[in-house]
Amino acid sequence: MDAEPEVAVLRYGHRPGRDDRMTTHVGLTARALGADRVVFPDNAGQSKETVEDITGRFGGPFGVETTDALNGFIRSWEGVVVHLTMYGERVQDVQEEVRAVHREEPVLVVVGGEKVPFEVYEAAEFNVGVTNQPHSEVAGLAVFLDRLFDGRELDREWSDADQTVIPMETGKRVVDPSEAESAADADGDS
Amino acid sequence: MDAEPEVAVLRYGHRPGRDDRMTTHVGLTARALGADRVVFPDNAGQSKETVEDITGRFGGPFGVETTDALNGFIRSWEGVVVHLTMYGERVQDVQEEVRAVHREEPVLVVVGGEKVPFEVYEAAEFNVGVTNQPHSEVAGLAVFLDRLFDGRELDREWSDADQTVIPMETGKRVVDPSEAESAADADGDS
Repeated sequence: MDAEPEVAVLRYGHRPGRDDRMTTHVGLTARALGADRVVFPDNAGQSKETVEDITGRFGGPFGVETTDALNGFIRSWEGVVVHLTMYGERVQDVQEEVRAVHREEPVLVVVGGEKVPFEVYEAAEFNVGVTNQPHSEVAGLAVFLDRLFDGRELDREWSDADQTVIPMETGKRVVDPSEAESAADADGDS
Repeated sequence: MDAEPEVAVLRYGHRPGRDDRMTTHVGLTARALGADRVVFPDNAGQSKETVEDITGRFGGPFGVETTDALNGFIRSWEGVVVHLTMYGERVQDVQEEVRAVHREEPVLVVVGGEKVPFEVYEAAEFNVGVTNQPHSEVAGLAVFLDRLFDGRELDREWSDADQTVIPMETGKRVVDPSEAESAADADGDS
């Protein structure tokens, strides 16, 4: 995000059909909550298309890539690797340390699908649990990113968008980005 | 959660088959991140079973219900209604106000499926956007709950669990809850 060291999200594992929506949501959540890019397994081409489409319409920069070598991608990462897992250390216990590392070097966040081999647990500098309860890899990623960036990601600005949503109390308002600033001003006056 | 006014999550809309996993993840996220119960549309029986199964194994209390009257459920809610939507006010702008209301009365968090009618926007005291970007209802719910509870939900304790995960740096450790405390102590010594 902006001038900080990069944060990339790696979706580890994908079953075409069954996982399409979850993988897409991992990618969209990575984009919306401050990561710089997402990396999907190369059989997740449909999710890649969807995330690229959203980035084209709502802005970037945000990268979407695929890899045919998940373990190789992790091994060759030049920075710190964080693996999100319900078996890991409590996020509230390690978040300060992870934030400190992120001030110095890029962070790769690995988000599991169904089966993550022990190799990934060993390769990760941090195995982190957003609770030690079973819930959702999308929920875990969202809370982790919000805490990693300490909320800064919510103020991120987007470039090259075709459309921008103007936050409002009731209803929906979507405008051309060139109108967004004046629309927001008008809301403030109303 | 514990002695606080209730927080319930209502999943608004469900398409059997296509939405099963997303609806299940909404329920599991609600449970893991501090809500007291989830309410599903009555065609989401499979998701209800899964969330009840997880609650039986990993503990509660957590309620799972269904309703055949989503709008009626919202109308008759005795407390404040928060609708999560990418068109809403920014969560960082309204979270303090929502926290203050929650100190006094129960909160119903409405999480949309594909189509949420305008009636819901009008019925909600707060329409809240966790970013004004398209991403994932599961991610939005997760960040919203983490901010509503200000992280307290991560320290929640569970009753009547059959199994408990012991957080650890590398690997997986699942024990009987009666062993959890001594297991944690042993880890601390190692």
